Parts: sequence; C-alpha cells; structure tokens
Amino acid sequence: MALIVQKYGGTSVGTTDRIKNVARRVARFHREGHQLVVVVSAMSGETNRLLALAKELSANPNPRELDVVAATGEQVTIGLLAIALEEMGFKARSYTGGQVRILTDNAFTKARILSIDEQNMRADLEAGTIVIVAGFQGVDAEENITTLGRGGSDTSGVALAAALKADECQIYTDVDGVYTTDPRIVPEARRLDTVTFEEMLEMASLGSKVLQIRSVEFAGKYQVKLRVLSSLEDPMVTSRGTLITFEEDHSMEQAIISGIAFTRDEAKISVMGVEDKPGIAYAILGPVAAANIDVDMIVQNIGASGHTDFSFTVNRSEYQKALDVLARERGKVFKAREIIGDSKICKVSVVGIGMRSHVGLASKMFKSLADEGINIQMISTSEIKISVVIDEKYLELAVRVLHKTFELDKPPVPIAGSAV
Amino acid sequence: MALIVQKYGGTSVGTTDRIKNVARRVARFHREGHQLVVVVSAMSGETNRLLALAKELSANPNPRELDVVAATGEQVTIGLLAIALEEMGFKARSYTGGQVRILTDNAFTKARILSIDEQNMRADLEAGTIVIVAGFQGVDAEENITTLGRGGSDTSGVALAAALKADECQIYTDVDGVYTTDPRIVPEARRLDTVTFEEMLEMASLGSKVLQIRSVEFAGKYQVKLRVLSSLEDPMVTSRGTLITFEEDHSMEQAIISGIAFTRDEAKISVMGVEDKPGIAYAILGPVAAANIDVDMIVQNIGASGHTDFSFTVNRSEYQKALDVLARERGKVFKAREIIGDSKICKVSVVGIGMRSHVGLASKMFKSLADEGINIQMISTSEIKISVVIDEKYLELAVRVLHKTFELDKPPVPIAGSAV
Repeated sequence: MALIVQKYGGTSVGTTDRIKNVARRVARFHREGHQLVVVVSAMSGETNRLLALAKELSANPNPRELDVVAATGEQVTIGLLAIALEEMGFKARSYTGGQVRILTDNAFTKARILSIDEQNMRADLEAGTIVIVAGFQGVDAEENITTLGRGGSDTSGVALAAALKADECQIYTDVDGVYTTDPRIVPEARRLDTVTFEEMLEMASLGSKVLQIRSVEFAGKYQVKLRVLSSLEDPMVTSRGTLITFEEDHSMEQAIISGIAFTRDEAKISVMGVEDKPGIAYAILGPVAAANIDVDMIVQNIGASGHTDFSFTVNRSEYQKALDVLARERGKVFKAREIIGDSKICKVSVVGIGMRSHVGLASKMFKSLADEGINIQMISTSEIKISVVIDEKYLELAVRVLHKTFELDKPPVPIAGSAV
Repeated sequence: MALIVQKYGGTSVGTTDRIKNVARRVARFHREGHQLVVVVSAMSGETNRLLALAKELSANPNPRELDVVAATGEQVTIGLLAIALEEMGFKARSYTGGQVRILTDNAFTKARILSIDEQNMRADLEAGTIVIVAGFQGVDAEENITTLGRGGSDTSGVALAAALKADECQIYTDVDGVYTTDPRIVPEARRLDTVTFEEMLEMASLGSKVLQIRSVEFAGKYQVKLRVLSSLEDPMVTSRGTLITFEEDHSMEQAIISGIAFTRDEAKISVMGVEDKPGIAYAILGPVAAANIDVDMIVQNIGASGHTDFSFTVNRSEYQKALDVLARERGKVFKAREIIGDSKICKVSVVGIGMRSHVGLASKMFKSLADEGINIQMISTSEIKISVVIDEKYLELAVRVLHKTFELDKPPVPIAGSAV
C-alpha cells in the first residue's frame, strides 16, 4: 500500500465525462489498496473565463479580489470529482486550499507556499476516504484566498506530496511522459523511462513544457518522486510514464544525452562595438530587466581593441519593446556602434546529465549541424546542456539531425548488473 | 451616517455591466457618508449551470460536495464587485461566508445560520472600506462550506443586518417595492410605502414573491428594518421602495387591507365521506407529507352523520403524485367514499393587518365575488388574511374586483397627527 498524490490538469477534467474518467482511474488505484490524494485544476477554459470577467471591470484588477474570483475554478472541480466518486460508492472529501490549510505568503496571483497542515487529510486517508484538493490555491495568514499563479496546480501536487511524504506524485497530463524530443518533429522520438530533475528543468525551460518549472524545483528540494503520465489513456490501464529521478540514484544507467529541446518564438539582439569594461553588461541589461523583459541566453565575446559585441535573446513578443528600450538608453548609459536584431531565430539544445563527464559532445553537435549547412549564430553551454541559436527555418531539420546523431531513437544500454 | 446592508440578487449582478451599475449605487451611498455592507447572489443562471454539472455526475449528488460547487457562484460575484469598486477608487473587501464567519448548522444545501462574527467587517467599515459578502453561504463548525438553500441570499442580508445592528437592510430586486397586487393584472396597483412583517409573510407565501419567506421571518425576529427597492433604476436616483415595518410602529396609519395576493398553479383534492373521528387528518395528510408533497390550504367541514369531507390544495406539479399517494393508502389507513380533485383552480387572498379589528370584511369580499358570478370553492382565514379557492379562469377578474372593492388604488388616509 502506497500513499499516492495524483494531479490532473484542466484538460483532464474539462468535461463531466472526463471527470468521470478521472474518478475511474482514482478508484482503480484505491481498489488496489493505495491511499489517494487527488489535486485538480479548473476545468479547461474556466480560469480564462473568470479572468476575462475581471478584465471587463478593470484593466488592472485588484489582485486580492482577482484571486477570490480565480480560485472558484478549482473549487468547482473538487466538488464535482468528489460527487463522481461518491456516486461510484467511494468515500471522498474535497478540500479548498484554505480548508487543507495550504498556507502561503500574501503575494496575490503568484503566492508561494509556506506550509501545509496535513492533519485532516491524514485522518481522512486512514479512514479510507479519498482526499481531493483544489490545486493552484491557498490562504495567507489572514485567511485571504491566494493563488499560486499559472500552472500552480503542479506545484500544489508536489507540495502536498512533500508534506504527506507521499510515495509518489503522479502528474497526469495530455502526454504520456517526457520524450527525447517532440514526436511531432521526430516520429522516432522515444519516451524516457526516467529523466533526472536537472534534465527535466532544462527540458521544461527549453520548451518541452510538460511540467511547470517551479513544481520540478520544489520536487527536487523535497526529494519528491515525480511521475508524468497521460490522463487520456484508458483509466483501467497501468502505464509507467516517465519517472523524474534524482541524479544520484540513476547515474549508472544514465544515457549521455537524454533529449533535444527547442524553443521557437525567440529573437536575438546584438549590441555591437560597446566598450569592453566592467559594468557594461549591467548597463545594457539593467534597463531591459527594468522594463520587465525576460532575457534568456546572454553571450559576450572576448573583445578586441577595447570593444566587444554583446548579444542576448528575448521572447519574440518582447523583441520590439527591448529594441525600443535599448534605443532610448543608447548614448546615455552605454555607447554602442550599432544595435542589430533578428526575430527569425530559434534555439535548439542538447540536454543530458551525462555530458558532464563526456568531452567532445559539443564538437559532435556542431559538426552534425555544419554537415547540414546550418549556421550557428550563438552558443551557450551549461553543465548539462549545449544550446545554439540558429535560423528558425532550420529548426525541424536541426532537431531531427541531432536526435539521430545522439542515437536517441535507440534505448540506452543498461550497464550490466544495474537495476532498470 | 448610517450602517446600511444592501442585498443584490442574481439579475442585478447578471452581467459585468450590471455589476458596474451596482458598484455605482453602492458608491453613491458611500459618498453620502454611509457605511456599507453589500450582500450579493451568484450571477443569474450561474447556480443553475453549476447544479446541472453536478447532476451530470449524479442524480443525487453528495450534499456536502454540492455546496462546495454551488458556493462558487457567489464567490465570483463578490470578487467582481470588489474589483469594480476598487477600479472606481474605493476601498472594498470581499468576504466568503467562511471568511466572515457565518456559522451554520451542517444541514448541507439548506443550512441555518447559527451566528455571525462581525468583528472583521466592523473593523473594515471603521476604516472606510466597503464590505462585500457572499450571500447564500456559510461554514459549519468543522469549516465545511454550507449553503442556505434557494433564495438564501436574502436571509444572509437580513442576518448580517441583525448581527451588525444595521440601520436598514435594503433588498434590491427587479421590482421597486411591494404592490397592492400584481400591476400586470391591475394597472392601478399601487406601491406600498410600508407593509408590516406579517402582511409581507402572507403576501410572499401567497405568491407576491418579492422576498424569501425565511428572510422576512428572520427580520421580524431580530427587528431588522427591511426595505425592498429596485436595482434596475438609475443608480443615482434615490427611491423609497417599500419599508417593511413592525406592526407596533405603524398601527395608527395602517390601511385595513394592504393587498390582494394570489397563487396560480394550485390544485385541490377532496377526500369525500371520510369518518369524522380524531386522527383522520393525519391519516390522510401523513402519507402525503411522507411523499414530500407540500400542502397549502386545508379545509375540513363539520361533518354530518359521522362522516365529513376533507379538502386541501397542493402545487399543481404535485397534483398527480398526491392523488396516487391517496389512491394507494385509501382503504388501508383511511376509508373514503370518493376522492376527487381539480387542477384548474387558483387561490386569491385579501391581506391586511387591519382586518383583525374589522368585522364584515369577509362578507364584503364574498359579495363582490358573487356579484361577478365567481363561485367560491374553498375558504380559509387567518388573523390577517382571507383566502378563497376559485376556478383559475376567474383569477384576473377576482383580483381586479377585490382591488377595487377595497379601494387599494387610493392611498390610505393618514390619521391626523401621525408620522408618515
């Protein structure tokens, strides 16, 4: 018997028929003897509907009250799922964030969880009751309703698993696991049985958006065993999904490269011929950050004759805004020969925990791109990934070539004697 | 400066434009220097939508969970109204039933209010904040969400007014007050400036459904000054509506008859030739009540030769069900010569606190009906009303005739020296 936290997203509970399907799956696990805590999102479209109502009343709605409105989406789902389970003859009990007591700070619309009182849930579980908790929400110390921000239901699930010391936290979504890359681009893409937290973080932030990044960080911090599964499969089928593991547990059977991640919708900006002196990066990026523009890759080459070129990427939707900011500040906080940009680029990354101890991977990557005539515009590396910026028209080609180069279509060879 | 509780129903907050209108009205009272507590219902149609979702999952949804789902309707409205007021530059703060702490029993879907903690609201009011409270809901002692049942928002408004010792509780609805009868039937129908609680109770239960009965009882018990007003008028206009008063305060200026109430959709059933012995009423009505059928008028004539005729009225939608129950029980728990019924009847009532001390009103009523050739099928009287059952085709005629007979189109003559 295990204590399992399951989290279902908006699509998985988007209709009453789908809620019935979730109830069947929950019931199956319960029948197998497991204790179950089920975290749910709002029915798909509901949160947007509620926020749109608020926007009709104010361009900038009071955040405390916006949370009061938004939190109702999940509250509807918990009640409906409990009704479905009770109808099937199971004991079920719904909890709002406040009823659990998921205590958060008071940063309305993007609150952070401070603590979770697991007493009542624990008593319910011991009594054989299925516990259903509203994701995405909590209360602050003054009993104000708070929400965790978009995608916060994943975080709720992981945080509850941590608080309850659950054996596993299962995140049900519309894909059946984490893949070596997007199967729509590479049909040979393979579902990974396991992926490390660090790889997952890179995969998520690089565009393979299966899980909300914060929830993965949270899982890493509290060592929660996290599994990504599909809610669209037959609820009576046991599928394995992808287990997100701690590096230490799996280093022996780790493939060198786990996947190829990518991001469309990037844009790059280069500030050419700036003075090569301390503080120049801040002089350029400070105003950009102040304008609330997120910067992704940042590259600065070694300069010659006291000048250097400074490049960075931003989301394409913020490209023009970033150019405007730089045009405004140029000559004031920094000098530059020229500011140029390109909004037709993409980023492709090779991700793998194994690359830490393997040299030559970068040159292998660059060679296979060169063989296809793909020019690399920017390069950035970390301990577990190598990212390149290329012309967006080569995205699919680059992903396919790299997937093949690193033999991701073939399962990793387990090292003799290690557990799979 | 007064402390005013305002309650707005579902139609009044049915769209964001209407919510803006409510905000404008609230703001006007606030600008005039009043302290305001605003109680709101769910946006019109929303409660039905939520209950329909639950019904898709279970014919008989778990009541605790049904309340979790249903309570979200009002929660959305409080947040939206607070957002609208904040947008206009006012300080506003929303409260769910649980946040106020409106403590109820645990009779889910039809809970009763036990107590209200007014501390936080009071502090907000003192600080110049407009307080917005979700109607229809509370929490039980275990923090479970409860609802007060259909129309419960009126009760929430009155209960809050009682707890806060408010100067007035204003119920905004789609009519601008209580009328002597339905203006759609009698164009000369006149809005009453005042009506007593007892009359209001009779008017409401007899079909002039302006207010939920329970809220009027509650107001009477706690001596809350209740005013019915229209939310559809220009929010900048001050209208007086109808004040619901305590008999003692207004006996001097009270008209004898206040209004003509009526109910369509009634049906009558007569059980003929039953034994005239103790317990016979229970023998007949017990099984009807056990089948959850509400009985309205009950008439039993003095019997002759040990037998009597027993008649009662039910809602037309339950007519056949009631007949079936009696057919099943006849010969078992009671004997009867014949059971007959008529589903084409209606009830018309003359209501007035003044009739207690005036004789001859009943005969005046019966004569004016007889003059029009309207046959009276059943009669029932209380201290403040006389009700008759007649053929439904005469409803409009009877109401018009009685309205004229009792000169309800003319304002009551104030007794010299009394305050109006």
